[in-house]
Amino acid sequence: MSERGAITAADLAKATGLARSTISMALSELRSAKIVLEVAQAMEVRGVGRPTSVFSLNPKAGTCIGLHVGLSGLRLIVADVSHAVLHHAEIELGLDYTPRAAMRKARAAITDAYRRSGLSPHSLLGIGVAVAGPVAPDGRIQRASIVPNLAGVNIRDVFASAFETAVFADNESNCSALAELTWGAATDFDDFVYVKIDVGLGGAIVVQRRVVTGAAGAGGEFGHISIDPNGGLCRCGNRGCLELTAGFRTVLERMSHRLKRSVTIDDVVERAFAGDVDCVEAIAGIAEAAGRGLGIIGSILNPGIVVLGGTGATAGPLLFERLTDSYERHTLLKRAQLAAEQRMRIVPARFTTDGSLMGAVALVLRGLGALQGGG
Amino acid sequence: MSERGAITAADLAKATGLARSTISMALSELRSAKIVLEVAQAMEVRGVGRPTSVFSLNPKAGTCIGLHVGLSGLRLIVADVSHAVLHHAEIELGLDYTPRAAMRKARAAITDAYRRSGLSPHSLLGIGVAVAGPVAPDGRIQRASIVPNLAGVNIRDVFASAFETAVFADNESNCSALAELTWGAATDFDDFVYVKIDVGLGGAIVVQRRVVTGAAGAGGEFGHISIDPNGGLCRCGNRGCLELTAGFRTVLERMSHRLKRSVTIDDVVERAFAGDVDCVEAIAGIAEAAGRGLGIIGSILNPGIVVLGGTGATAGPLLFERLTDSYERHTLLKRAQLAAEQRMRIVPARFTTDGSLMGAVALVLRGLGALQGGG
Repeated sequence: MSERGAITAADLAKATGLARSTISMALSELRSAKIVLEVAQAMEVRGVGRPTSVFSLNPKAGTCIGLHVGLSGLRLIVADVSHAVLHHAEIELGLDYTPRAAMRKARAAITDAYRRSGLSPHSLLGIGVAVAGPVAPDGRIQRASIVPNLAGVNIRDVFASAFETAVFADNESNCSALAELTWGAATDFDDFVYVKIDVGLGGAIVVQRRVVTGAAGAGGEFGHISIDPNGGLCRCGNRGCLELTAGFRTVLERMSHRLKRSVTIDDVVERAFAGDVDCVEAIAGIAEAAGRGLGIIGSILNPGIVVLGGTGATAGPLLFERLTDSYERHTLLKRAQLAAEQRMRIVPARFTTDGSLMGAVALVLRGLGALQGGG
Repeated sequence: MSERGAITAADLAKATGLARSTISMALSELRSAKIVLEVAQAMEVRGVGRPTSVFSLNPKAGTCIGLHVGLSGLRLIVADVSHAVLHHAEIELGLDYTPRAAMRKARAAITDAYRRSGLSPHSLLGIGVAVAGPVAPDGRIQRASIVPNLAGVNIRDVFASAFETAVFADNESNCSALAELTWGAATDFDDFVYVKIDVGLGGAIVVQRRVVTGAAGAGGEFGHISIDPNGGLCRCGNRGCLELTAGFRTVLERMSHRLKRSVTIDDVVERAFAGDVDCVEAIAGIAEAAGRGLGIIGSILNPGIVVLGGTGATAGPLLFERLTDSYERHTLLKRAQLAAEQRMRIVPARFTTDGSLMGAVALVLRGLGALQGGG
């Protein structure tokens, strides 16, 4: 229900596979506890026209914190259970910060957030942590994280020790995919692949409405598909990873050098739309490489839907067309031979910068949501 | 239940998520219809020691046909619902046979099988078809099939028109994975990757005990991961596909030329075990290439378990060691930094030649099994 907004008991029975009697009993308990509200009465589409109750989560039932743990700092949102964002904060920590520093700063920021927004700290249902790196199912950040000091740290334990609340953690792209699944571009899809084209390249796999995290948290690490074992060194330690050619890092370095100032993806996209040939070509190169990677993913997972996010996705047609064309050349099944409903469709993500934070909130709601069965 | 052998009502409730009352009712109906038998009474491990009924499918409840549609012919088994094989047949059709010829020969062979084994044709519950090529969810064989005449044919419709019974169809490797999941090396694993190293290279992905077929049936087509877009031409039409280096086709051609006779994978493996340096090196080369492909799969899916099948798997340590070593070099997360339970484990498949046929039978049982929820 935390995923779907308002819903009827019959829909819940269908979605969960539970008996209607079980659902009725559970709803009645949740109503007593004021976690669920009866928001409307609707007429059934078929049948004798008996009115049906429509239920929704009570927005006042609690708050969740979404926390993003990045290269040089933290970002934080406070949201209610209907996923309205009540507060937003950014915390600079500088490069190479320690887990302890992150935890302390987060604690101060959270206390501040609740005071400023007049919320009761007792309303806190849980904290979701989105990490810029793979997170093992037990909460341990793997070595391939982009924050070296966090490698080997159990981020769930770090926050659980400081806050007396439920803590959930996952990779940032997995969180972004969860946000798209829960409230974004993928609410109608049980299975999809999420690809984030940004400074690096990230991703996630959703099967039967669950994120495939993998045995050690490396599920969806598309940026580290080994394209050329003799290629350039990647920050992960391997050579020739996909993100070296399909992420914006190299392009930004080159453009910064050319323009003698720090250049962002937004700058490159803006210049490309204005006709800067160098920027148009740079985006086309990224699209070509990303399409090759997606072609490989196509021969492995054959997704029907690819949700494309990250700042790079703002390049729109400059990126999408060449990417689709490159995908077609590199994947097994060709578009022309497929029925319309079997063809891969690329859908732009709904969330751009805040996707992983919204996903971290979804992580908490799924983790706690008995009706959802967790994720 | 068709997957798990004997089981209690409590186990069924746990496995299906249905209420115990629902299970009891369903079991009682199935017992009346003699589809389910009460095979034993067991004491519960915990609790007051009330005896619990243990149920099993009735082997006499029906028979299933598993049919393999290959390059130059069909293979067929008749099995009962406890997956005992009652009959086995091979039908040569020559290269480039038509779907109609396949259907007619299959019908004759099935009639013959039931007459010879004294089974009633009325016991037939369904036919499962395992195809050497990708099969779309609607039963249509995709162009990338190795039998050109079958491209675009809806194989489910072909057999459904000739037999008045339920027909299910899937790719041969997807079927093999289902056999491993149901009765083989993967019964204990909800999530795994299946890799078949044979003349070509095939595979399948299992997530939450279901095969990920993909939007158009190309899920698990690992043999067609694009390794080198400028490489040699593959039978699929792309260049530099993984199976060109990780399958035995090229090696068999080379060895046949060297030995001036038709050489099989068994020959190569046997010679390698006997110390033939050329054969040892050929297997090592295949292992190196397969490890690179598996490294890519590792960065995409991060499987905890890889079930390795196909005739190539009989090379055992000659294949497994180099493959594991190559995987380690090409994947994101490195063994040394992972907790023991997060490391990828390679497990040999239980079924070798008959895996896809057994899986085709499992396809029928899952498809019909109301208790299983289907696959």
